[in-house]
Amino acid sequence: MTSTRHAFGSDLISGDLIVGGKARRGQGPEIRGINPATNEQLEPAFAHATSSDVVDVAQLARDAFSGYRTTSAEARAMFLETIARNIENIADTLVARATAETGLPAARLTGEVGRTTGQLRLFAEVLREGSWNGARIDPAKPERKPVPRADIRLRFVPIGPVVVFAASNFPLAFSVAGGDTASALAAGCPVIVKAHDAHPGTSELVGRAIADAVAECELPGGTFSLIFGDGPGIGTELVTRPEVAAVGFTGSRSGGLALVRAAAGREVPIPVYAEMSSVNPVFMLPGALERDAEKLGAAFVGSLTMGSGQFCTNPGLVFGVGGPDLERFISCASAAIEKSTATTMLTPAIAASYNSNQAAMQDRDGVETKGLGRPASCSNAGLPALLVTDADDFLAGRELQAEIFGATSLIVRFRDEEQMSHAIAELEGQLTATVHATDNDERLAARLVELLELKVGRILFNGWPTGVEVGHAMVHGGPFPATSDSRTTSVGSLAIERFLRPVSYQDVPPALLPSAIADGNPDKIWRRINGEMTNL
Amino acid sequence: MTSTRHAFGSDLISGDLIVGGKARRGQGPEIRGINPATNEQLEPAFAHATSSDVVDVAQLARDAFSGYRTTSAEARAMFLETIARNIENIADTLVARATAETGLPAARLTGEVGRTTGQLRLFAEVLREGSWNGARIDPAKPERKPVPRADIRLRFVPIGPVVVFAASNFPLAFSVAGGDTASALAAGCPVIVKAHDAHPGTSELVGRAIADAVAECELPGGTFSLIFGDGPGIGTELVTRPEVAAVGFTGSRSGGLALVRAAAGREVPIPVYAEMSSVNPVFMLPGALERDAEKLGAAFVGSLTMGSGQFCTNPGLVFGVGGPDLERFISCASAAIEKSTATTMLTPAIAASYNSNQAAMQDRDGVETKGLGRPASCSNAGLPALLVTDADDFLAGRELQAEIFGATSLIVRFRDEEQMSHAIAELEGQLTATVHATDNDERLAARLVELLELKVGRILFNGWPTGVEVGHAMVHGGPFPATSDSRTTSVGSLAIERFLRPVSYQDVPPALLPSAIADGNPDKIWRRINGEMTNL
Repeated sequence: MTSTRHAFGSDLISGDLIVGGKARRGQGPEIRGINPATNEQLEPAFAHATSSDVVDVAQLARDAFSGYRTTSAEARAMFLETIARNIENIADTLVARATAETGLPAARLTGEVGRTTGQLRLFAEVLREGSWNGARIDPAKPERKPVPRADIRLRFVPIGPVVVFAASNFPLAFSVAGGDTASALAAGCPVIVKAHDAHPGTSELVGRAIADAVAECELPGGTFSLIFGDGPGIGTELVTRPEVAAVGFTGSRSGGLALVRAAAGREVPIPVYAEMSSVNPVFMLPGALERDAEKLGAAFVGSLTMGSGQFCTNPGLVFGVGGPDLERFISCASAAIEKSTATTMLTPAIAASYNSNQAAMQDRDGVETKGLGRPASCSNAGLPALLVTDADDFLAGRELQAEIFGATSLIVRFRDEEQMSHAIAELEGQLTATVHATDNDERLAARLVELLELKVGRILFNGWPTGVEVGHAMVHGGPFPATSDSRTTSVGSLAIERFLRPVSYQDVPPALLPSAIADGNPDKIWRRINGEMTNL
Repeated sequence: MTSTRHAFGSDLISGDLIVGGKARRGQGPEIRGINPATNEQLEPAFAHATSSDVVDVAQLARDAFSGYRTTSAEARAMFLETIARNIENIADTLVARATAETGLPAARLTGEVGRTTGQLRLFAEVLREGSWNGARIDPAKPERKPVPRADIRLRFVPIGPVVVFAASNFPLAFSVAGGDTASALAAGCPVIVKAHDAHPGTSELVGRAIADAVAECELPGGTFSLIFGDGPGIGTELVTRPEVAAVGFTGSRSGGLALVRAAAGREVPIPVYAEMSSVNPVFMLPGALERDAEKLGAAFVGSLTMGSGQFCTNPGLVFGVGGPDLERFISCASAAIEKSTATTMLTPAIAASYNSNQAAMQDRDGVETKGLGRPASCSNAGLPALLVTDADDFLAGRELQAEIFGATSLIVRFRDEEQMSHAIAELEGQLTATVHATDNDERLAARLVELLELKVGRILFNGWPTGVEVGHAMVHGGPFPATSDSRTTSVGSLAIERFLRPVSYQDVPPALLPSAIADGNPDKIWRRINGEMTNL
């Protein structure tokens, strides 16, 4: 480790870009990390990249692609594990810096280190298991009439260099070495990360951990680059570079749509996986409210206010049928909100935006404020808020389903179950929908599942959407505007498929066949032969 | 069959649209089928749809979606088989009409009936096999620390109504009941076909066969609609309807790009699977040329001139290292071309475009005409042509790699193997690349495979690209501009994945779980449990 750290000129954070494994001082405007709890500016200054840096990282990634994509799955698995170890080796420094830059509690960030390294190791497992190859073999049928069938084999290959836009709200797990980076590197794609200015020091530390792993594993330098820069300028330049083959993004709707538009203007269109906007409706069914209104009210506020509500899957909308049980839920949730305290948000801009969006929502016709958290002495605080409205006001337009990034949620009182079910058709696409139900609610719950399948990426029962398990069956995605491409997920092992495309090999001589589709199954993976699954 | 035919008022071709199972006279401009061999106009007149027809088919498809998507896989398999039977029942009528409308030989069209019904039955098999569900189960771990793991399950669901733009060059297999329609219907998506004006009667006959099957299988009427109309007008209106969730297209680059642009301008982006443009380079390696130059020259012309060269995978470009062996190949291919006869192309417009593009290519600097077929007395004929150029002229720009849809091919003489390998980087994305090689060529062939994997959807050895097998391992796709989305294929069983998206089910009560991810595996399908494949 020591030797590679010296490659960056210092053991401290330098504020440099990482361009194909080498530190380089950006020549753009300088920014600094800011401690949002104190508004203190943090050292050192980070210089934004310029257009020539963008050209360089893109060309280095393209140059690295041929070498990196032909590494073995085992080599890439070891690379991901090396990144994980390098991150663990600097965990204390990372957590300290990330706490200073984000205002998030150290315990949460320590957990996030584990989530990040766990994701990297999950993709190492996925690589070794081998199903990502999508191997298929239709053997030749020389005797077939009227024409013989050729030997045809299929495997998936990496799509090319990927640009990843780091998110602000998970400075580790959705940032420099987050899910997008892990899945793209696993697929065999070089990665260029555009760091988020909200946590530049954390970004550099993690970027070094990856660049060190590139060197330790003797991979091409251009396999990984990290640059700082503004999204509308440098971000758009990155997305429109001809060397770039795909884009991963987690952030705001306006930011994601700008990248989608930039990519659509390219000569060669490329996939943009932008995870953007979701209010994650929660359906409180009559049986659940009757039995558990109080308990659910308190638990709901726990999910809403966790991490200052700064989760993509934060429950920003609650649907229930008006009546005494819903009022019990509301009053218990209000009481819990009023006991909560404002907490520091990730950046001054996020806090300002939260407070103004919250105020605007409170002012809308038909919206009643039922509970507000207690103010806090910290800077950039966001006050948790519980708002209530009636279905007719909610359904009058789409304004009341706009996401407020933070701990504000709107409860909608419906006239009856029918009106509540119908409202689903009026919802925009969502990452999640939650149903609270008892056995007595089964008929309605079944109807909701059928309707919600059209609108969301994940349906969950009797829990809260804010935990996103990293596993094989997770979908963190969903119809627009939750994401720009509903066919995929950005969390979990399925995410590797975003960065792969299929290639057929017809009558290719055995000596030239990739091992995934070679005779005798040397990789010992699951394959589809004549359409049937086999691991032989 | 008889009773359902009466639903259309006549056993003859009516020229009507099929709007959600019902015949309706379009109110737009009228067009007629034209026999390209004679320029004879065919009865009856077909009326183009108007904007209000577009609104209706889109809304009917949306209304049909909830009912159709929740049919069982077995019900959809039987539906596809019913369509196949209905097509077989009218095979003679179909072939006769298609021959008149396209100038293609009856034998070819009879084969295409088999290909079309074979595709439908392949997707019925795929539905019954069940892997298309992508079922994954991560069972709960209540004992896990620090937080228990929820029960999380994943399956793929249909994406929504699909608009299919029929191609001109396969009036059956890539048209109304072609691969796009079969895969979308298999996935559970209602389909709206925009017929190709080049074979309107064939389109109506097949459309009726599908609409009859919808009625016989008691599916919602909006499961299938067929409309006539111009691509820039009606086509764009279809693609921008909010009810439409995905688009399949096979045709020209300009047509495909217009749809891609129209879709990019939507409020909600949707996938557009446009298969557009490919010159399908063929690499003649030194060993192969040395051993088989004459035989390969003749076989190449066979592939080039088949079906008047009107295949997406027609070999429009041949690469070889200059020298006596390549000259033997060229002279033998020229001789074969000169023995060939011009044949009728699909439409007057296609023939006119072919002839003018061919003439323009012949006039380009450095392009030498080495052979021309014999003129024919039929109308709308395309003269096969063999052109030759040197690598420096070829590499000077991209003009010489433009697709000429028809039986014209350009042979490029390279200085050496190195120059030929480097030229691959200058190629646009392709559906296929073909390598002719002997054991002596292995080193070069291996290098080419590695380079071609970045550029094409299918690599084939010692054959010709014009046969596209419908199977499990086929990729008919590739990087832009071969297609607008390289992550998929439009031929073969993998194509069903284009119209599906994943949904997670977290702690959903067992009674509400779809059978694909229910306990006990009632569908008896392959699933991934805790990341491991099992059919138990």
